[in-house]
Amino acid sequence: MGKKAFQDYYPDDFNHCYGCGQLNSQGLQIRSYWDGDESIAVFTPKPYHISIPGYVYGGLIGSLIDCHSIGTASAAAYRFAGRKMGSQPTLRFVTASLQVSFLKPVVLGEELEIRGQVQEIKERKIIVRTEVRVNGIVCAEGEVIAVKLPDSMTSEKK
Amino acid sequence: MGKKAFQDYYPDDFNHCYGCGQLNSQGLQIRSYWDGDESIAVFTPKPYHISIPGYVYGGLIGSLIDCHSIGTASAAAYRFAGRKMGSQPTLRFVTASLQVSFLKPVVLGEELEIRGQVQEIKERKIIVRTEVRVNGIVCAEGEVIAVKLPDSMTSEKK
Repeated sequence: MGKKAFQDYYPDDFNHCYGCGQLNSQGLQIRSYWDGDESIAVFTPKPYHISIPGYVYGGLIGSLIDCHSIGTASAAAYRFAGRKMGSQPTLRFVTASLQVSFLKPVVLGEELEIRGQVQEIKERKIIVRTEVRVNGIVCAEGEVIAVKLPDSMTSEKK
Repeated sequence: MGKKAFQDYYPDDFNHCYGCGQLNSQGLQIRSYWDGDESIAVFTPKPYHISIPGYVYGGLIGSLIDCHSIGTASAAAYRFAGRKMGSQPTLRFVTASLQVSFLKPVVLGEELEIRGQVQEIKERKIIVRTEVRVNGIVCAEGEVIAVKLPDSMTSEKK
């Protein structure tokens, strides 16, 4: 896909995250995009992302919800500020709280569709609700409270 | 360590979980034990379990809380029933809900101590609260609602 994902705009220093860093060769490397007012990512779990036989590991689903929601928060912050994604200073968010409800077991081997919606947006705090669907059926839903990355945790040159 | 972990009692068929399956060579293979009324596990994240530079990936912390809590639920169910761990029929639980609050960033390279406490126990539903500590400081706390694995999801011979 030629389109740039939210994660492609992360500065290299901040693109090593196990879940969504495009520079982490051992990570999940999820890629999130806008689809109107919603955000979307797709991911096909590997055979070793198993829980009980035939089903996907819940911790993976939680990780996908976490990273997709954080990417959505970053993209939404740029939209909210009327700024181009990736412009300086970087708007990056971290997870303060992650809640996941597992509604149906997810069969291993299927592609997961991960869809986020911004529920609340302020300069320093964004709430994103994210669903994980398989063949159109919602199997898990989550809520992430994202807070702006404190300056003390960035090494970005100003 | 010669002591048997909760996960060592899982039947082989149910010991492939990415987070806690002792037979998943690509997984986290966490091992949980009783420490009085609390349960404990330790885990040292790998360098690739990174989020932002120098810190541990939140999705990993969520996964550790999830699997340790589920292991605790299984062990607690055997205790509650007055049965020996591992005896038939197997008492296995799955995650209905996972909530994690990230209180402090976790520096990469340190050993994590994961401690669970059973908050509520019924035959089919167990609530476990689990903390992740680094050098004695609580960095994340989570709550898992564990429900008994439906018979339809097991292939165990009765």
